[in-house]
Amino acid sequence: MAHSRQIGIGIIGGGYMGKAHAVAMQAVGPVFDPKLRPRCEMIATTSAAGAADKARHFGFLRSTGDWRELVADPKVEAVVIASPQGTHQEIALAAFALGKPVFCEKPLGRNLAESRAMLAAAEASGVVHMTGFNYIRTPASQLARQIVAAGEIGEITYFRGEHTEDFLADPATPVSWRCHGRAHGAMGDLAPHMLNGALALAGPIHALIADIETVHRQRPGPDGPEEVTNDDQGHLLCRFESGAMGALHFSRVATGRKMGYAYEITGTKGAIRFDQEDQNALWLYQGSARADRQGFTKILTGPDHPDYLPFCQGPGHGTGYQDQIIIEARDFLHAIETGQPVWPTFADGMRVNQLVEAAFRSASGQCWIDVATV
Amino acid sequence: MAHSRQIGIGIIGGGYMGKAHAVAMQAVGPVFDPKLRPRCEMIATTSAAGAADKARHFGFLRSTGDWRELVADPKVEAVVIASPQGTHQEIALAAFALGKPVFCEKPLGRNLAESRAMLAAAEASGVVHMTGFNYIRTPASQLARQIVAAGEIGEITYFRGEHTEDFLADPATPVSWRCHGRAHGAMGDLAPHMLNGALALAGPIHALIADIETVHRQRPGPDGPEEVTNDDQGHLLCRFESGAMGALHFSRVATGRKMGYAYEITGTKGAIRFDQEDQNALWLYQGSARADRQGFTKILTGPDHPDYLPFCQGPGHGTGYQDQIIIEARDFLHAIETGQPVWPTFADGMRVNQLVEAAFRSASGQCWIDVATV
Amino acid sequence: MAHSRQIGIGIIGGGYMGKAHAVAMQAVGPVFDPKLRPRCEMIATTSAAGAADKARHFGFLRSTGDWRELVADPKVEAVVIASPQGTHQEIALAAFALGKPVFCEKPLGRNLAESRAMLAAAEASGVVHMTGFNYIRTPASQLARQIVAAGEIGEITYFRGEHTEDFLADPATPVSWRCHGRAHGAMGDLAPHMLNGALALAGPIHALIADIETVHRQRPGPDGPEEVTNDDQGHLLCRFESGAMGALHFSRVATGRKMGYAYEITGTKGAIRFDQEDQNALWLYQGSARADRQGFTKILTGPDHPDYLPFCQGPGHGTGYQDQIIIEARDFLHAIETGQPVWPTFADGMRVNQLVEAAFRSASGQCWIDVATV
Amino acid sequence: MAHSRQIGIGIIGGGYMGKAHAVAMQAVGPVFDPKLRPRCEMIATTSAAGAADKARHFGFLRSTGDWRELVADPKVEAVVIASPQGTHQEIALAAFALGKPVFCEKPLGRNLAESRAMLAAAEASGVVHMTGFNYIRTPASQLARQIVAAGEIGEITYFRGEHTEDFLADPATPVSWRCHGRAHGAMGDLAPHMLNGALALAGPIHALIADIETVHRQRPGPDGPEEVTNDDQGHLLCRFESGAMGALHFSRVATGRKMGYAYEITGTKGAIRFDQEDQNALWLYQGSARADRQGFTKILTGPDHPDYLPFCQGPGHGTGYQDQIIIEARDFLHAIETGQPVWPTFADGMRVNQLVEAAFRSASGQCWIDVATV
Repeated sequence: MAHSRQIGIGIIGGGYMGKAHAVAMQAVGPVFDPKLRPRCEMIATTSAAGAADKARHFGFLRSTGDWRELVADPKVEAVVIASPQGTHQEIALAAFALGKPVFCEKPLGRNLAESRAMLAAAEASGVVHMTGFNYIRTPASQLARQIVAAGEIGEITYFRGEHTEDFLADPATPVSWRCHGRAHGAMGDLAPHMLNGALALAGPIHALIADIETVHRQRPGPDGPEEVTNDDQGHLLCRFESGAMGALHFSRVATGRKMGYAYEITGTKGAIRFDQEDQNALWLYQGSARADRQGFTKILTGPDHPDYLPFCQGPGHGTGYQDQIIIEARDFLHAIETGQPVWPTFADGMRVNQLVEAAFRSASGQCWIDVATV
Repeated sequence: MAHSRQIGIGIIGGGYMGKAHAVAMQAVGPVFDPKLRPRCEMIATTSAAGAADKARHFGFLRSTGDWRELVADPKVEAVVIASPQGTHQEIALAAFALGKPVFCEKPLGRNLAESRAMLAAAEASGVVHMTGFNYIRTPASQLARQIVAAGEIGEITYFRGEHTEDFLADPATPVSWRCHGRAHGAMGDLAPHMLNGALALAGPIHALIADIETVHRQRPGPDGPEEVTNDDQGHLLCRFESGAMGALHFSRVATGRKMGYAYEITGTKGAIRFDQEDQNALWLYQGSARADRQGFTKILTGPDHPDYLPFCQGPGHGTGYQDQIIIEARDFLHAIETGQPVWPTFADGMRVNQLVEAAFRSASGQCWIDVATV
Repeated sequence: MAHSRQIGIGIIGGGYMGKAHAVAMQAVGPVFDPKLRPRCEMIATTSAAGAADKARHFGFLRSTGDWRELVADPKVEAVVIASPQGTHQEIALAAFALGKPVFCEKPLGRNLAESRAMLAAAEASGVVHMTGFNYIRTPASQLARQIVAAGEIGEITYFRGEHTEDFLADPATPVSWRCHGRAHGAMGDLAPHMLNGALALAGPIHALIADIETVHRQRPGPDGPEEVTNDDQGHLLCRFESGAMGALHFSRVATGRKMGYAYEITGTKGAIRFDQEDQNALWLYQGSARADRQGFTKILTGPDHPDYLPFCQGPGHGTGYQDQIIIEARDFLHAIETGQPVWPTFADGMRVNQLVEAAFRSASGQCWIDVATV
Repeated sequence: MAHSRQIGIGIIGGGYMGKAHAVAMQAVGPVFDPKLRPRCEMIATTSAAGAADKARHFGFLRSTGDWRELVADPKVEAVVIASPQGTHQEIALAAFALGKPVFCEKPLGRNLAESRAMLAAAEASGVVHMTGFNYIRTPASQLARQIVAAGEIGEITYFRGEHTEDFLADPATPVSWRCHGRAHGAMGDLAPHMLNGALALAGPIHALIADIETVHRQRPGPDGPEEVTNDDQGHLLCRFESGAMGALHFSRVATGRKMGYAYEITGTKGAIRFDQEDQNALWLYQGSARADRQGFTKILTGPDHPDYLPFCQGPGHGTGYQDQIIIEARDFLHAIETGQPVWPTFADGMRVNQLVEAAFRSASGQCWIDVATV
C-alpha cells in the first residue's frame, strides 16, 4: 500500500523545545494520520557532535552543527525553529528566501522590529508560517474559544489572564542567561503565551497601561553578586477593541506557581475559568441555568471536545504538555499540505511582540498607550 | 449571682445589616463571654411601626422611627450604624457629640470628605469608633494576617485582590437605588472590603492607576429604559509602600461570582491564597518545603486558628457569615470595656474612602496618582 | 407591643453541645422570627457552681447542678439534652413522664435497647421528640435531599458516605473516656450522623455487612500504656430497600480528615457530591446536559436554597456549624408550636442505633445481616 | 554515528489500545532514549486490508490479518497484545513458545485459569513478560508509591480505591459486546486497574467480601430489549495482609464519573489522595507539620518526580494518558535489554484475576473469602 505523501522536516535546536518538536514529528503520524507525513530529515544544534547525538536520540536521519546547512539542504522542505530567540530572525529569513515553510517558537523575534521583519519576509515568500503558542491548543482552551465564539457567555465584559511561574522566585537562584535581555525576561519570555491567549479569546487589545519591575536586582554569580538586567514581573490593565476591560499579569517570581497560564473570561451571559495546572478541565458558568442550580461546571475534556479523541477515547483520561506540540505539528503539516494559512501565523506572533513593546513603553512613560501607535 | 457588666446598645437600621448586628448582639454573650455584655436596648428604622416589629423580631427592648431619639436616649450607651450610607455621617456626628461609642458599617462616609469629617468627630470625642469590615475577620483571613506578619512568606512581592459579585450582571435586572450614586457603585460599595483587606494584608498603598466603567448603561425602569449613573466595575494597578506590586478588581457584573472576596499574596518565601466562597480554607505555599513535596496546602480552619474555638471545637466544622459579625461585636464591646482603640477604626475606614477617591481621580485623568495627595 | 409566645427552655449539659444549643436558643429568635420564642430558663450541669457560671455565660435565667430539678421545674417547658450519652435515657424518660417535649443529641441512647425505650416513652407521652442530627440540616444537604426527592438524579444506584475525623489518629494521643464504651467509639459516636444522612438521602437500609476494628489498641495512660476498649474505625457494604448499593465508612483515625462528613449519590440521571469540609457547596451532575458541556456543577448555597436566607442575603457568603444548631432550634420550636412531628424524631434516632447494632452483629459474625432482624 | 540497538516490535490489535501502543513505540525513542530501540515491524488486525491501513497510519513496516503470522515472523522479536481479552491466552502462549517477550494488556486472561496458564507459560519461557496497567505509572502515582514505601505516611490503616466511569450509566445506551461475558463487566474490565493499584500501594490483600450487581438488566437491542449478562458495578471490603482495612468500588454506571481511578491512603503519620481526573496532582497530608499549618498539600508533578522530566522540563506543565503508555514501552524495552523482570509481570496480572475471581465467589456466597484459597 502506498504511504502518505512525505515532507522532509528540519529542526533547529536540540534543547527542551527541540526535543518536544522532535517527539511531535515522530508521533504526529500515528496520532493524527495527516495526509502529509513528516520525514525526520535533519536536526541542527550548535555542534556537529551534539547534533549527531540528538539525531540518534530523536530518530532523525541526519544532523549538522550549522543551521545554514540544514536550511539549505534540499531534502529539508520545512523548518522548525526551536533555537534561542536571538537566532529566530536570521534563520527564518534564510528559510523564506528558499521558499521553505517555517514554524517558529515564540516569541517570534527578540523585539517588535525583528518580528515585523520576519512577518514581512514570510508574507513575501508566500509559504506557510506559524508561531508556536502551544498552550492555547489544549482541548480545554480550544473549547473555551468555541464557547466564546458561539456567544454562549454573551459579550465579554472582563478578561483576566496570567502566566506566572516561580523558577526565579528564590533570590538565591544564581544569575544565568535568563537574567539578561528583554527577550528573556518575564515580559519577553512568559508574557507572549498569555498575550496570544488573550487575543485569541477576547479579541484585539486597543490600549494598555503597564507596570514592570525587577524584584531581585542582584543574584549570586560565580564571583559574587551580579546585576539582573531584565524584568521579573509585569502587569497591565487594558481595553479590548470590543470595549471589554482586561488585566494581565506575568511573573517568574510567583512563588508557588508552577504553570500559571490561567484566565477568567466574564461575559454577560456566562463565564469561563481555566488554569493550565489542571489543563484537562474547563470551568463554565451558564447564566441561563435555573437560579438554584447555577454554578461553575467542571467540564473534563473528552472525545466531544477539540483534538482530544486522537489521543484517547475516554473522557477525563487526559492529555498533557507533549500532546499540545503534536497538535501544532498536525496544524503545520495541514497548512503546508493545503496551502492555507494556519493560526497563529507570524502576524499573530508579531502582534504579541507589539503588545510587549507597548507594555514597556507604557511602563516607561507611566501612561496609557494606544497599541496601534506602537 | 452577679451578671457581667452591661451596656445598652442601639442599632440604627432594620435591613440586612441591621439584622446581622442584632443577631450578633444576642449571640455574642453566649459565644464569647465578653466582660462587657450588650443589652439590646433600642432599634431605629424609618418608621415607628416597622421599628417596633423589628424590635419584637430581634429581641430589642424598645424601638423608634427616629434615629435621633435612639442616639439621644440615655439608656443607649453605644450606637451601631447599619442604615444607608447617606445617613452615616449625620448619625455618627450626633453620637460622638454625646460621647457615645460608634460602630459604623462600611463604607464609612459616602465620600472622602464625609469620612474625614467622621474621623475628626470620632477623634475629638475620644470614644471608641470602629468600621465594619467583616470579611477580614474570618479565622482564615486572620490566619493570613498572622502568617504575613510572622514573615512566613517573606517579603510580599505581589498582591492580587478582588471583590466580585454578579447581582447586576444581567442587563435585564431593573434599575434600583443601587444604580445611582458613587457610594452605591462597585467602587463605592464593593471595593471597600477588599481595599481594607489589601491594606490589612499588604500594608499602605502608595500609588495607583485605575480604570472604571459602567458596563450596562441602561436598565429597565417602570416606564422604559433608565440611565445607570454609577459604575459596574473597576480595577487598578498599585504599588504598596513596601514596593510590592498590586492589582485589584471590583465588580457587580462578574457573572458566576457570588462572593468573590479573594486574594493571592505572593512573597519571597511563600504564598497565600484565599477565596471567601470557601471561607473555611486558607491555602499556604511554603517555599521551605523540600522540592518534591512542595505545593499549596489547604489549611482548614479550626480551634488552633484565631477566633474559631468559641464557635466550634472541631476543625473543619466551619464558621459562616453571621459569625463574622459576632466577632465584630466582641471587638467593639472589648474596645469599649478597655478603652483601647479597635482595628479597624474610623481612620481605617477613611483610608479606604481615600483609595476610592484616588481611583476615581486616576480613572478620570488616566494617570497614576499618589494616594497621599488625595 | 405584644411579644411572641414564649416557652421556657431547659438545657442539660454545659459542654461543647450545651453551649451550641444555648447560643442557638439566644439566636433563633432574631434569625428566624419563630412564632414560639424560647425563654432561656435554666441550665443544668454536674455542679451548682458550674451551672451558675454557664447560666451567666450563656444568658440563662437560672441554673442547677441537678438535672432532675431542671426537668421538674414548672417554668421549664421543653428540655434539650446535651449531656453525655449515658444520661440520655434517664433524662428523656423523666421529661416525657412530665409531658415535656425533648430534643436529644445524637446518639439517642447508648445502644438500641435504650433508644427503643426512649422512643416508646416519647410515643407514649404524645409530646414532641427530636434527635439532634445537625449536619444534614445545612442548606447544601437540604438541597441534596430536595434534588433527590424531585427525581432530578433519577433512581439512586449507589450511595457512598463517610464520617471520618482524625482526632485519635496519633497513637501517642493519651487514653480518655473516648476510648471506652461502644457509644464513644467510631461506630457509636461518629457513625450516627452519616447513618442518618444515608437514610435521609437514600432511604431505608435493608441489609449490611460490616468490618470494625481498633487500630491503636493501646494508648498512653497516666501510669503507662492502657487498653483501648472500643473501635477506631468501621465500614460496611449495604443494600438499601430501593435496591441501591451503598458503602459507608466511619473513622476517628483518618489522618488528615477534620470533618469528613461526606457523601456521593449516584443516580441513573445524575449525581451529587458533598463534603462538609466545604459545607457551602453542593456538586451536582446533570446527565441531561448536552454532552460536551457536562460536568459537576459547584452550586454555592444562597438565598434560593433551604434555610439560607435568614442567615444571609448574599449567595456564597456562607453559613457555618453554629447555624445548623440554630436551624434545629427553629424546627424544635415549630414542632412544639404546631404539635406536628419534626424530622428526625426519636424513631429516626432509634433507626440509627439499630444500624449500629446491626453493624456490630455483622462484624462479629462476619456475615450479611438483615437489619429488620435486629 | 551508530544507531542504538533495535528490536522488531509486533503489535496485535488496531483499536484504541493498539493505537496507543503504536504511538508509544514511535515516541519512546525520542522521549526516553532507551538503549534498546523499537523498530515498528508489523501490526496485525483481523483483516489484511485493515491491518495494512493501520500499518500506514501508525508507521509500521508490515502488516497482516493473521496474528499467527506476526508472532511467527522472525523479524518480530517482541509482541504487544492489544487485542480483545478472549485472544490474550492463545497469542501469549504462541509467543512464549517461540521465546518472544510479551507485553499483554490488562486483564491478562479472561479469568483466573487463563491467567495462570499464561503465567506458567511465561515463566517456562524464561523471557520477559509484562502486564499493561498504565494508570499506576503516572508520575503522581509513582510518587505515591515512593511516599508509602519511604514510610512517610507511617503504617497504612485504610485504603479506599475506585475505578468508576459512566459509559453505561444511561439505560438507553444500546446493548453491545461490553454487556456480555464476565471479562467485559465492571469487575472484569474496570476493576483490574485499581486492584493492581491497591496491591501496588498497600500490599497483598488477604481476604475480602464483595457485592456485585447488574443495575440495568435490559438494554435496547436492534430487535427490542435484550438481556445484559454481566455486571454493571461491584464493591468490596477487604483486609490487606498488613492488617489494614480496605474498600474498593468499580462501576461503569457511575453517572458523572469519567475517569474515576481514585484512591485515598490513610496512614498513621499522613495520608495521600489521588484522582486520575486530575492526574498531575497528588495530595499529601503530613501529620508532622505544625498543628496550625496542617492540611492536604496539592503537589503538582514535575521534574523532581518519577518519569516526568523526559516529557517536560516545567513542573505543572503536565503529562497525559498517552504518556503513560510511553512509560510502559520504556519499561518493556528496558526489561528486554537487561533481562530483568519488570513490574508488573504476568504474576501481577494473575493476582488481579485472582482477586476478581475471589470477588465473584464472595458475592455468590455472600461471605468473606480468603484470597489464598482461590
